[in-house]
Amino acid sequence: MTATGNASLAIVGAGSVGTSIAYAALIRGAARHIALYDLNAAKARAEVLDLAHGSQFAGSAGITGGGDIGVVEGADVVVITAGAKQKPGQTRLDLAATNVGILRELMPQLIARAPDAVYLLVTNPCDVLTVAAQRISGLPPERVLSSGTVLDTARLRWLLAHRAGVAQRSVHAHIVGEHGDTEFPLWSTATIGVTPLRDWHRDGLAPFTDEVLADIAEEVRTAAYTVIQGKGATNYAIGLSAVRIVEAVLRDERVVLPVSSVLEGFPGLEGLDGVALSVPSVVSAAGARPVFQTPMSPAETAQLRASAAALQESQRAAGLR
Amino acid sequence: MTATGNASLAIVGAGSVGTSIAYAALIRGAARHIALYDLNAAKARAEVLDLAHGSQFAGSAGITGGGDIGVVEGADVVVITAGAKQKPGQTRLDLAATNVGILRELMPQLIARAPDAVYLLVTNPCDVLTVAAQRISGLPPERVLSSGTVLDTARLRWLLAHRAGVAQRSVHAHIVGEHGDTEFPLWSTATIGVTPLRDWHRDGLAPFTDEVLADIAEEVRTAAYTVIQGKGATNYAIGLSAVRIVEAVLRDERVVLPVSSVLEGFPGLEGLDGVALSVPSVVSAAGARPVFQTPMSPAETAQLRASAAALQESQRAAGLR
Amino acid sequence: MTATGNASLAIVGAGSVGTSIAYAALIRGAARHIALYDLNAAKARAEVLDLAHGSQFAGSAGITGGGDIGVVEGADVVVITAGAKQKPGQTRLDLAATNVGILRELMPQLIARAPDAVYLLVTNPCDVLTVAAQRISGLPPERVLSSGTVLDTARLRWLLAHRAGVAQRSVHAHIVGEHGDTEFPLWSTATIGVTPLRDWHRDGLAPFTDEVLADIAEEVRTAAYTVIQGKGATNYAIGLSAVRIVEAVLRDERVVLPVSSVLEGFPGLEGLDGVALSVPSVVSAAGARPVFQTPMSPAETAQLRASAAALQESQRAAGLR
Amino acid sequence: MTATGNASLAIVGAGSVGTSIAYAALIRGAARHIALYDLNAAKARAEVLDLAHGSQFAGSAGITGGGDIGVVEGADVVVITAGAKQKPGQTRLDLAATNVGILRELMPQLIARAPDAVYLLVTNPCDVLTVAAQRISGLPPERVLSSGTVLDTARLRWLLAHRAGVAQRSVHAHIVGEHGDTEFPLWSTATIGVTPLRDWHRDGLAPFTDEVLADIAEEVRTAAYTVIQGKGATNYAIGLSAVRIVEAVLRDERVVLPVSSVLEGFPGLEGLDGVALSVPSVVSAAGARPVFQTPMSPAETAQLRASAAALQESQRAAGLR
Repeated sequence: MTATGNASLAIVGAGSVGTSIAYAALIRGAARHIALYDLNAAKARAEVLDLAHGSQFAGSAGITGGGDIGVVEGADVVVITAGAKQKPGQTRLDLAATNVGILRELMPQLIARAPDAVYLLVTNPCDVLTVAAQRISGLPPERVLSSGTVLDTARLRWLLAHRAGVAQRSVHAHIVGEHGDTEFPLWSTATIGVTPLRDWHRDGLAPFTDEVLADIAEEVRTAAYTVIQGKGATNYAIGLSAVRIVEAVLRDERVVLPVSSVLEGFPGLEGLDGVALSVPSVVSAAGARPVFQTPMSPAETAQLRASAAALQESQRAAGLR
Repeated sequence: MTATGNASLAIVGAGSVGTSIAYAALIRGAARHIALYDLNAAKARAEVLDLAHGSQFAGSAGITGGGDIGVVEGADVVVITAGAKQKPGQTRLDLAATNVGILRELMPQLIARAPDAVYLLVTNPCDVLTVAAQRISGLPPERVLSSGTVLDTARLRWLLAHRAGVAQRSVHAHIVGEHGDTEFPLWSTATIGVTPLRDWHRDGLAPFTDEVLADIAEEVRTAAYTVIQGKGATNYAIGLSAVRIVEAVLRDERVVLPVSSVLEGFPGLEGLDGVALSVPSVVSAAGARPVFQTPMSPAETAQLRASAAALQESQRAAGLR
Repeated sequence: MTATGNASLAIVGAGSVGTSIAYAALIRGAARHIALYDLNAAKARAEVLDLAHGSQFAGSAGITGGGDIGVVEGADVVVITAGAKQKPGQTRLDLAATNVGILRELMPQLIARAPDAVYLLVTNPCDVLTVAAQRISGLPPERVLSSGTVLDTARLRWLLAHRAGVAQRSVHAHIVGEHGDTEFPLWSTATIGVTPLRDWHRDGLAPFTDEVLADIAEEVRTAAYTVIQGKGATNYAIGLSAVRIVEAVLRDERVVLPVSSVLEGFPGLEGLDGVALSVPSVVSAAGARPVFQTPMSPAETAQLRASAAALQESQRAAGLR
Repeated sequence: MTATGNASLAIVGAGSVGTSIAYAALIRGAARHIALYDLNAAKARAEVLDLAHGSQFAGSAGITGGGDIGVVEGADVVVITAGAKQKPGQTRLDLAATNVGILRELMPQLIARAPDAVYLLVTNPCDVLTVAAQRISGLPPERVLSSGTVLDTARLRWLLAHRAGVAQRSVHAHIVGEHGDTEFPLWSTATIGVTPLRDWHRDGLAPFTDEVLADIAEEVRTAAYTVIQGKGATNYAIGLSAVRIVEAVLRDERVVLPVSSVLEGFPGLEGLDGVALSVPSVVSAAGARPVFQTPMSPAETAQLRASAAALQESQRAAGLR
């Protein structure tokens, strides 16, 4: 008979990011089956055991995995967290080239086993690697996405919510562009409820002056560095961000999230086709569809172009065209 | 020792609305304690038993109740669903007067037992009764609210989401004003993600023409009648709407919801102070605080004034001033 | 591409039981798609609307339905709540015969549209109707089950938990046999944690004397009558019980629940093959598999035989063989 | 007004165990407020940021923390994960003495700030440290508990469920005694549903022979070593186990869990009073109350005595008495 509710998630890479994703997915019941793969089989098996040992307290998901890439077979979503980390002295462009090389090995093996999956890139630099993964695989652009600025957007909303005195879910604001130094907030459309950010009052005051907004944008941009300085890495927030995207795909939610995918014909990016960056996109079982009618001020469009141009440069440096 | 997590919800009225609220609250784990009170003690006790018998499958909440109003003692939120229903031949204004009379009996007894609670009116006409309950109790306006157009807004988003092809949670639009014939949507600020409704495209088309929007507004306005015609009453959607508001209070969420509370000095309503109607409001453990900076087009402001004027008329007819 | 997580639930009958199941399933996110069918198309459509209007607050499930039986197409689980209710002066055996007649019409139409589904009977007398549905459909016995004593067991655990001063989830006890007058608790294996019920102490006392246990068994047996006397029907607890079983099937949980299915060769029931009654059973995507190694005292085995014999009599009276 | 639902959790120690607890608590919505404290203020602040950045996707909990112990103020539950880890060449007894020393510093500071909290020890050796924390604090024994064999029991059920072909929630079996080498399963009362483990059949076979059970007990006993060998530590399963206990306290669940607390007068442990080890216990807002009527075979009682004697020896070596 037809088994049911069989949503299946595969995670490539059993490091702190990959296992934080698995842990969050397990606790939230995001998938019926979770598979964890890592070249380091002993590490993968130990992580699977540690997660499985807690599964009694966490819904009805099963978790398996190890060093055999066959565990991704039949996955509906494949999350890629594998890749080299930046070494002291290594430039970000070197890193990109290294990780593109890893994808050249990895993608064909994954596609052979999960040909119908949606692929979610979490490894950095995630925008460049999204382009690489899409080109290597030849999949339609909507089927290859990265977490992009979903995490940065979460950071933004957390900061805005605190200062506004409201719940995060009532803050509607997005970070778009590169997941990196050229990212920026779409202030022109940012609201709390339906009230434009700059009009919001609290205790009789308007807390969001231009200066405050500039500080917040900067704080979001440097948040990862702050966390890394204190704990050596980031894993928990990216874990939840990735699972949120995974759920949107597995439940065919059609929710709007600022994920990154390869753009063609996006308004404002004339002459910059083929770059992947984050814009509000409808995320469903089909993958990600960028919202072309996203309103931007002329300044924001210029920022988006600048971000795309910087990414195009990085892509070239990483050997993509 | 101080017990913990002791959020307590009391529901007045064990009819189909009151028990649908109790059922939804039980399943969602919205409160630690749920108390159900009804003048008809046998009915209340039977409903409590029927709910308690299912509690094994529904988190750790306890449910009690009966015909003794003492069960509301210590509640953090009191939801009032009690009241007469419209009889054939009875005008809505007659109904309002009858239910105001019931509140005159009920409120002092409730306040004596739950003096620190937030009061949520679900009985219709809910806006007029909110004014009555606030005046009778003498509570600060923020502590007396009604579900208002939260339900109508849910209906609106469901319709918009279907037509737009996105998740309801990505639709940002509000119905405001009276919970009734003069309610209207704030189209000027309605968006999907950050895209204005009228700019949204699907399959290359803009599905939200003026005509479509007018039809949708009308469909929302008449939705209750449609449901009542088919099943004789509405209970499930209002049950979930009420529980959503209860959760916002019990968890001190500070989320923006279009609840109704008595307004003083709301921009655009000059000369109409003291009317209760729905506008986007921050809902927290303190109750509801209307967002004065809610942007409206001149036409929308005119509609809001018309709705308030109609409600003021109803209040007077129901003997309030 | 292969859509994912597409668990689909169909409910036949839009009365208070059918819609309570739909409401609970919606709130719990038990299925991705819920379809509600009723001969009374206007009623079904109104209930669907009332449920859909609350769906914004209830996960990502979609709900559809109406008077066209085609809505059950592709369901993974079909819950049958349709059937006549006992009329004044009508015997239970008359009722059984009437509802068997309804199943003769209904089952072939359902099987034609949902040939791979698991069928869950909630209409009473549910044990007799389970036999009828299985014979009419010719499905393997494990694919046709009824909620049986799952609800009675929930009532038992609620009573025991209160008196023992522990959480319901730490009470391990089952009601088995007919969902009706001949049902009985398996006291010989009932425990709190791992402690036999009769050995449990609270405040220095053993609260479960033989007399107390007899009273509790009686209270469970008559609970439905108590509820019906006060509110005219039962719907909420049976709603949650049915959804719990539905989840066990849709998630392929393989959890042990006392559902009812047609038994063949069950130890102790020699000579009584072909009767459906509740015993601890493993519930999974494949349906229900009775646990043949369920330990019973000689007295319990005698009670089970008596219950089976009474049901066999009812079956014959209802025209099944 | 009285705020509501204000369950507050403090976690001492921002290592991988402490932060896994915080992450799981955040995702599950186990508490309204989570505070994370670590002597290493920069580490604690970075972990709090990384968790807070994901909070948009995880219910309505707030998370704070840093290097000031004042963050535990007002906590309802304090989880202690701080302590030295075993160094190469260091004996377990040395480790115990070191961590007892840390508790001597820590407990008075915690008690001063959270005098009404329940204290949950997760640092190893957790049984010995439970005795130390209870003596240092002078709190009633039920208010000082450790996760004990809750994790080992989860590992046991996972193994049994797989082999039996049933859901973990239908496996009723406990590991008791020391959280360590002398722990053992209570096979005499272990069941699947109500069926004794040894009587369970699957595909016509009884999968739980004495040999299989001995292997499983050994696998549970050595599971931590297996995980540590592969990933260097355990954190995810202990994170979920601790959160499960925290929830039982914060929701006043009165659920039976094998936590560890200081025992006095426990049947079978005559002459061994004052040792902390795990037995089935009722966990509530009041803390842990061991179930004195836990049935054990003579062999199991002997194993429990041996475990207690080993722990008494460890306590002495760690300088307790």
